[in-house]
Amino acid sequence: MSKVSLLGAGSWGTALAILLANNGHEVTLWSALKDEVEMLSVHREHKDRLPGVILPENISITDDLEAACKDKELIVFSVASPYVRQTAKQASPYIAGQQMIVNVAKGIEEETLYTISQILEEEIPQGRIAVLSGPSHAEEVSKGIPTTVVIGCQCQKTAKIAQDIFMNDVFRVYTSPDVIGIELGGSLKNVIALAAGIVDGLGYGDNTKAALMTRGIAEMSRLGMKMGGKIETFSGLSGVGDLIVTCTSKHSRNRNAGYLIGQGHTMKEAMDEVKQVVEGVYSAKAALALAKKHEVSMPIVEQINEVLFHNKSAKAALSDLLVRESKTEYPSLEW
Amino acid sequence: MSKVSLLGAGSWGTALAILLANNGHEVTLWSALKDEVEMLSVHREHKDRLPGVILPENISITDDLEAACKDKELIVFSVASPYVRQTAKQASPYIAGQQMIVNVAKGIEEETLYTISQILEEEIPQGRIAVLSGPSHAEEVSKGIPTTVVIGCQCQKTAKIAQDIFMNDVFRVYTSPDVIGIELGGSLKNVIALAAGIVDGLGYGDNTKAALMTRGIAEMSRLGMKMGGKIETFSGLSGVGDLIVTCTSKHSRNRNAGYLIGQGHTMKEAMDEVKQVVEGVYSAKAALALAKKHEVSMPIVEQINEVLFHNKSAKAALSDLLVRESKTEYPSLEW
Repeated sequence: MSKVSLLGAGSWGTALAILLANNGHEVTLWSALKDEVEMLSVHREHKDRLPGVILPENISITDDLEAACKDKELIVFSVASPYVRQTAKQASPYIAGQQMIVNVAKGIEEETLYTISQILEEEIPQGRIAVLSGPSHAEEVSKGIPTTVVIGCQCQKTAKIAQDIFMNDVFRVYTSPDVIGIELGGSLKNVIALAAGIVDGLGYGDNTKAALMTRGIAEMSRLGMKMGGKIETFSGLSGVGDLIVTCTSKHSRNRNAGYLIGQGHTMKEAMDEVKQVVEGVYSAKAALALAKKHEVSMPIVEQINEVLFHNKSAKAALSDLLVRESKTEYPSLEW
Repeated sequence: MSKVSLLGAGSWGTALAILLANNGHEVTLWSALKDEVEMLSVHREHKDRLPGVILPENISITDDLEAACKDKELIVFSVASPYVRQTAKQASPYIAGQQMIVNVAKGIEEETLYTISQILEEEIPQGRIAVLSGPSHAEEVSKGIPTTVVIGCQCQKTAKIAQDIFMNDVFRVYTSPDVIGIELGGSLKNVIALAAGIVDGLGYGDNTKAALMTRGIAEMSRLGMKMGGKIETFSGLSGVGDLIVTCTSKHSRNRNAGYLIGQGHTMKEAMDEVKQVVEGVYSAKAALALAKKHEVSMPIVEQINEVLFHNKSAKAALSDLLVRESKTEYPSLEW
């Protein structure tokens, strides 16, 4: 049994708090939002994000960041990507050398093009930083539906300790050394999910969406490998696995936001309707900047940026993607 | 404009006949089934398989195999896998040297462990054999929904000619030299789709299914690469693309058969209910034999064989898959 805490009590942070509590750990769930802290304390239920799921007794709720960080074997960073740097800056003074931090947020910082773990490395240089990712909708994890994820860390020993803390019969955890590959998979897939949602919203079929997802994983892999990620990772749980669940599940807010855009709504309307943070909208700009920086062709990311930020119609963007000159599938394969 | 014919008027053969006719070709659609020939001739509609889709005028229906083969620039083999050898044997005398044949069926012959193109090479050695595969449900192709596929052929020139014949604005065709990779992707994915259907039938979630699909593509790739296929192909349209559409679409009979098995029906009941040929049931045994022959670990294929042929319960099989010892995601990646 370990003392663990989660910084951020959205759907994912809350679901992981429940998982860790059910694993027998002593869990602290922190939120910066007064209303959220009160709701969770009074009702023992996240009524907005995970309605109907009651928190086990061994979860304590707090808005005290110092208490949440001190003397914990593991700190989970589960704040939405736009708030990671600020939260890390505030938490850092309370985090001791070698304390273990597992980031579960997905995204790329627009100004720096850093992944979340790179932000954490900068703000909390004394910590041991790992990441957890994979096909894992919070709603299902909170209900004990079988789920498989991967934990990445440059230190194998840290990865194994984190694996032991999270693992149980219905939450299977693999380990990997490929931190950057795991993070890029988790972030870039949200942009592809917006495009997949647009395909659905426009009324195209399963064939169309599967083709788009296939080309999507190819462009994610191209960029990721240029940035040091491994091809295996993009074929794995945090790559194609997470892409599949995000593009096809009714739980996915990125896919749902894309669906609304495909149906003719603006980005603003779609984000208002989905209510929660739509990471793919933030990641789309960053992904395009990374593609330019690393000189990688990412046609889906380009078209999504046109739709989100330059008023291109969803139909025209999809059409431009579909009629691209089709030659050989992989020019590198020789006849 | 070319003279083309299709041998086999199931849903896929009929949908491709419509596509080729709409591309302006002179199309002959052959069936060995008297009832089917009559239905298509009289009603100009495949009432069982593609109800509501009317055949264009430039499709002629025949049960005359000689007439269907002679003087055609391209012959499409669209018979279900169990009937390919027998049809090829009967057609071979009518097929001239260098005549172009495109196989669109998926499967592995149980006795020989041959792919369909290997059967065709043996029975019609004078032909130029290519294959077409990818995420392409017949129902959607017949309605002009945007679809992307890949044509594989050892001869690049043949691949390009076939590409030109099939390609249009809503049916995008890539070419590839990796015939074996394309065929194995198309065949093995049906076995994984049975497993994905079982996950749905048992009431597990999107997380569970995405994890299973990810492990599925990994075991398909392991076997395929041992047999000479390329890793890129398994990440492409005929690999992960076809896997996605087959595991997630309501049109997929393999997924639907698996769903019924997951709900407690026997294999026989599921096949009766789905009515059409469930390729994955035929391919499951062959895939297991190939795994043993090439000494490749294929846990999903193993468990599906246990369920289909050795009365193991679907629940126990899934449970055995989920609780496998979870260590590193890809042992080949070094820390």
